[in-house]
Amino acid sequence: MFAIAPATGKANLSASQLKLLTGKARWIFRVAEAGFPTVPTIAITRAAWDALIAERGRYDTKLRTHWIACLYKLVGKDGKPPHLVVRTSAGSHNGGLMPARSGIAAPTSSEDSVDPTRPLARAIKQAFESYGFSARSWGGPRQDDDRGRQIVLVQVAAEGEIAQFLTRNASTGALGPAPLAGQPPPRLPAEVEALIALLDSKSGRHMACLVAVDGAHMQFLSARPVQASAGAELAAAVDRVNRKVWTPHNAVTRVDPNRLAQMLHPHIRSSEGATPIAMGLGVSPGAASGIIVFNPEDAARLRARGKHCILVVNETGPADIEGMKAATGILTARGGMSSHAGVIARITGKPCVAGVRTLSVDPVEMICRIGDRELRAGDRLTIDGSDGAVYSGTLPLAQPQIVGAVGTLLGWSDASRTIAVRTNVETVESAATALSFGAEGVGLARSEHMFFSPERMVALRRVILSEDEDDRSRAIAGLVDYQTGDYSALFSAMKGLPVTVRLFDPPLHEFLPRTDEEVEETAASLGVAVRALRLRLERIAEINPMLGHRGVRLAITYPEILQMQMQAVLAGARAASERQGPPVAVEVMVPFVSTATEVSWVRDRAMAIVDNSGLQRSERVRFSFGTMIELPRACLRAGDIASMVDFISFGTNDLTQTTFGISRDDAPTFLAAYQRKGIYERDPFVTIDEKGVGEMIAIAIERGRAANPRLKIGICGEHAGDPASLGFFARLGVDYVSCSPYRVPVARLTLAQASA
Amino acid sequence: MFAIAPATGKANLSASQLKLLTGKARWIFRVAEAGFPTVPTIAITRAAWDALIAERGRYDTKLRTHWIACLYKLVGKDGKPPHLVVRTSAGSHNGGLMPARSGIAAPTSSEDSVDPTRPLARAIKQAFESYGFSARSWGGPRQDDDRGRQIVLVQVAAEGEIAQFLTRNASTGALGPAPLAGQPPPRLPAEVEALIALLDSKSGRHMACLVAVDGAHMQFLSARPVQASAGAELAAAVDRVNRKVWTPHNAVTRVDPNRLAQMLHPHIRSSEGATPIAMGLGVSPGAASGIIVFNPEDAARLRARGKHCILVVNETGPADIEGMKAATGILTARGGMSSHAGVIARITGKPCVAGVRTLSVDPVEMICRIGDRELRAGDRLTIDGSDGAVYSGTLPLAQPQIVGAVGTLLGWSDASRTIAVRTNVETVESAATALSFGAEGVGLARSEHMFFSPERMVALRRVILSEDEDDRSRAIAGLVDYQTGDYSALFSAMKGLPVTVRLFDPPLHEFLPRTDEEVEETAASLGVAVRALRLRLERIAEINPMLGHRGVRLAITYPEILQMQMQAVLAGARAASERQGPPVAVEVMVPFVSTATEVSWVRDRAMAIVDNSGLQRSERVRFSFGTMIELPRACLRAGDIASMVDFISFGTNDLTQTTFGISRDDAPTFLAAYQRKGIYERDPFVTIDEKGVGEMIAIAIERGRAANPRLKIGICGEHAGDPASLGFFARLGVDYVSCSPYRVPVARLTLAQASA
Repeated sequence: MFAIAPATGKANLSASQLKLLTGKARWIFRVAEAGFPTVPTIAITRAAWDALIAERGRYDTKLRTHWIACLYKLVGKDGKPPHLVVRTSAGSHNGGLMPARSGIAAPTSSEDSVDPTRPLARAIKQAFESYGFSARSWGGPRQDDDRGRQIVLVQVAAEGEIAQFLTRNASTGALGPAPLAGQPPPRLPAEVEALIALLDSKSGRHMACLVAVDGAHMQFLSARPVQASAGAELAAAVDRVNRKVWTPHNAVTRVDPNRLAQMLHPHIRSSEGATPIAMGLGVSPGAASGIIVFNPEDAARLRARGKHCILVVNETGPADIEGMKAATGILTARGGMSSHAGVIARITGKPCVAGVRTLSVDPVEMICRIGDRELRAGDRLTIDGSDGAVYSGTLPLAQPQIVGAVGTLLGWSDASRTIAVRTNVETVESAATALSFGAEGVGLARSEHMFFSPERMVALRRVILSEDEDDRSRAIAGLVDYQTGDYSALFSAMKGLPVTVRLFDPPLHEFLPRTDEEVEETAASLGVAVRALRLRLERIAEINPMLGHRGVRLAITYPEILQMQMQAVLAGARAASERQGPPVAVEVMVPFVSTATEVSWVRDRAMAIVDNSGLQRSERVRFSFGTMIELPRACLRAGDIASMVDFISFGTNDLTQTTFGISRDDAPTFLAAYQRKGIYERDPFVTIDEKGVGEMIAIAIERGRAANPRLKIGICGEHAGDPASLGFFARLGVDYVSCSPYRVPVARLTLAQASA
Repeated sequence: MFAIAPATGKANLSASQLKLLTGKARWIFRVAEAGFPTVPTIAITRAAWDALIAERGRYDTKLRTHWIACLYKLVGKDGKPPHLVVRTSAGSHNGGLMPARSGIAAPTSSEDSVDPTRPLARAIKQAFESYGFSARSWGGPRQDDDRGRQIVLVQVAAEGEIAQFLTRNASTGALGPAPLAGQPPPRLPAEVEALIALLDSKSGRHMACLVAVDGAHMQFLSARPVQASAGAELAAAVDRVNRKVWTPHNAVTRVDPNRLAQMLHPHIRSSEGATPIAMGLGVSPGAASGIIVFNPEDAARLRARGKHCILVVNETGPADIEGMKAATGILTARGGMSSHAGVIARITGKPCVAGVRTLSVDPVEMICRIGDRELRAGDRLTIDGSDGAVYSGTLPLAQPQIVGAVGTLLGWSDASRTIAVRTNVETVESAATALSFGAEGVGLARSEHMFFSPERMVALRRVILSEDEDDRSRAIAGLVDYQTGDYSALFSAMKGLPVTVRLFDPPLHEFLPRTDEEVEETAASLGVAVRALRLRLERIAEINPMLGHRGVRLAITYPEILQMQMQAVLAGARAASERQGPPVAVEVMVPFVSTATEVSWVRDRAMAIVDNSGLQRSERVRFSFGTMIELPRACLRAGDIASMVDFISFGTNDLTQTTFGISRDDAPTFLAAYQRKGIYERDPFVTIDEKGVGEMIAIAIERGRAANPRLKIGICGEHAGDPASLGFFARLGVDYVSCSPYRVPVARLTLAQASA
């Protein structure tokens, strides 16, 4: 127990006492120490209070003497015992804490000061009790230690009017005084600016302050940090640099990348008072409100009328792509992060909540159920693709903005960053978005995603469903033109920045018709009998498509697909190179390899096509060849593989699926239980599992670099947009990461922090 | 060039000449050296012959002088130039070789001896040419070297009648002389027995011999090894030990375990003249002939009449189990080694060919097509589940026998074996078979396989389809009695040998109804509406069931299943222990773990149930707890896991699937192309992939043993029955392997060889 702001003179705290200053106690000490009038205050730890009470049981008085001496320090020059206020002083904000108890009479005797039936001791006891047994559960001795350090403040009741205000505006981040939510702007003397400047520089956060104003005289009571909006925090950080309180480096390291991410999508302005009617998996970030629709036609109709809608389906398939594009958000009963719905939603930038287990949809009856609730077409929903919440009705949304402060901060962050940030895109539109967010190249262009439009899907299905080589060759010829134009446009859009084209990798179930209607349509468009198509579909159906006939396996079994694609890539590069100054940098990447033989097989054929094209000698196109590493065996054999390639890029999604033996699509049935029961600390599909998947990557990097010191190493799974994972990748020493466009700023900031 | 059997005296061959003796040349030398009358013979290598011809072009005669000198050695005491015979002398039997060319006049001049237009030189040249460019493709210098060492023999035409015979009977292995296939028994002088004993001891193989018989006089011409039946080779090996030609150790190390495997299933006696009409995957070994049926009812009907039938389906499911049991063999259009058909076929010991891509079945029309051929119910097929061949009509089959010699050999092999051999069984019948084959315990009892009967399947489906905890608890109660009886019977059958029970691990798609008919039946048996069942089925359908909600994930999400199963295991152990002398050794194993937390979670709950049972203190039951290691992450974290268990057992099937990222069920679409194009040397699902999956296992063993030196380590995947894989496992130092009953003898022999 000690006075951190005695009535007269300065507090002389020892080093160990200074260490005990948490929460409000810390700010009171700092303000008083700076010479600002501060209400006399005692801080007492739970350990000290418990000892004081224990001593009372032993009829001892050593500590009590000290306690009385502290209380005497609160007495002002007039010598009258003041009325007292008792406050908690938690290190972090914590619901359930006792509100400040004021108007407590000073103890009239030594015994009175520790008697829990008397006002002061009772208030102190209740304040400690309100901390509870710690919200966190560290377990073990650490917990007891932390508990003993909890602090209760005893303050003199200040004269004058009590005023509350924020040091910075909660929405804009402008330096205050600013009103608290729902309160009128405070009227304060001019000296408040010095107090605010002091607190802002000491805390580096938005602070809520309590002062007593008595005419022109102002006395500081307490302050605590508050969570402002992400935008306000970021603007404040830049402002602190402008005011020379922080260096740019301070700002870069102190902004939480997760907060930055929240700024880059529409989000629910406030969910206060609203309770989610269901929780699913947030598979594509951002929030969306709109009218429920159950089919693409209705979505298109509403969009044409300028209305927002939410497409609600059991799961999505190729037939739903137009509907997804038309909808404002997508809600599905099944599927996970890598489901068709999730993939398309992220590409198209649509918020999506998937795998809502309590949802069932009857598209024929145009009705869905969420738990007990029945919803019909026309009802309104709001979904939050960031946390998976589903709300009934329309909640207010805030649109994303790259405001000036974000640009300034990201500019500073680029100065200290050593790892490149690329993006996963296929279209010119997405590429433009990613470039505006600072992408330094395309790290993953999924060529099969270039077929997400009705007429192209027919062409692609023709290839997949072809019965023999002749049939397939004809079908492929139909794709070359599309692809050449796509690649040429993408290369041009990227203006000489490297573009990594992943060779064709369609998991069959995502590209084939499913419903009777789709099968009939597909049969008609392919000009085959429905019965024949059904037989063919049944023949090529896979039990575990994730581990099926995909990736490099397609290139090896159907070399004509590889041939077509290489020709399209090279023709696209040639066309783009004729239109622009800087040479086109093309990187071709073969997916889903498990052996070095697969890599050499594809490389030999791909390089033969490159050599024949003459582009290698033109200096207008720079070509390199690499492979994805997304299977455990590829990690182990990375030495053999690395000696045959210019670069490798880790596909952390599939690597997580195979290392854990978990289908991401099917995981929702048990992942929730796993997190609830503490089996997983974190969802391994969100944050990289360092001890398992991470070791696989580390092994591959070590073996790969040993075999090929010039090997370039990238990461192109979803984890490349996750701050915690990015820190790990930076420690592994990768050369670049590649994430979805909206995650590019997050990666820039996180990797700057990792390099700092 | 040198005379290996000159007309007079002994051949004096240098060490380097002895090294050149391959094929017949070797046996001629050995026989002559032993003092047996042998026809005078020259061996000339291709290198020597080529040099001789090249010298001729240079008008040089150094080598020719030597050649003439050799030819002179063939001249007998009478001094007359003999007629000659030219033979090839290949190291291994090779189609397309020139048959012996006889009646060649001896060269009349030095020039004549190397002139390719003259009979001798022409025959030699043609003999060399018939070797072709080597059947094997080693590539590189080694090939040229081997080619240069090819030998042609020049022999004196022997007097008397030429006789051919085998040193041992081709079917029984009894010491000869025995007739060649289709030939009458040879009439030979008594001294042939000494020749046979000599060749048998020198070669250790069945030899086909050629001698010239001239009254009582017999002259040896040549001999070559022949492939006898597996049984005959094995009987011969035991006979050689009995005759003290070999030690038991020689016999154990020289019998090929793959040959032993062929003896333990029915097999096609001869497929000569028969061409497969299709090739699929041999997923359950053995051959079967029978009438085609398309449904279980027909199979049962035919079986009741004592007829053999082959069940032909697109793929099998739970509804087909009775039909599979009734059928003699199973043929499917889809699925691979771990498909429902494959698993059930191996358990029930039925030959099965799966994944025949050219097969399509129309069960309604009762018709199937294999390529262009149309087959109907009642037509006959023969399938070979060992190599995947499908024949039209009935081919003659040979039934398996554990004949005396096999028992003797396996007895010898057990003496030098240090690694235990267990078996993968669930039923008392399979356990009895495995024990008769020498199994030393059960290494894998798949508890979910105990439900493969119609009334049990209903009970199991009730659990899987239950909607909530109450529902599930009631359904589970219905299973306990079945399980208790099953375990008790299995423990009793194994008479105190260890029995490893794997906790429940049903991949959902294998246990749920699929066709409309099955759904209706299941709805009726569960007492729910068809529509409600369909909705439920749709809700729990998985996209990649192999990586879905299975194994330990079921135990953690539905702890009541774990509870039920542990109680059933313990009740079964208690019941068995009351009936028998030796204590019951129960090992409970948790499948499909990827984290140590999963293991500790299940262990804590399982051990609490064991402690409550009081069995730990009874000394009538020995209990241990372990886990399967079948995911890459489990291999990496084996150190953490090992400290919590008594044993680990590698599930190499799933580990291969996840390490390679290959669904075994779906692999047939590309595996064939992969082997054809040389991407894989061997099918990784048949022989363990040492460089990838093998390293994962090695890492796990190293980390596991470091963390827990008393850790017991087993292998229980399909690879535990494959000789090449077993050799690798032995080098890794595992404690036991566990394979299907019919593979137990193969494992005993292979592991004895590995220990030797």
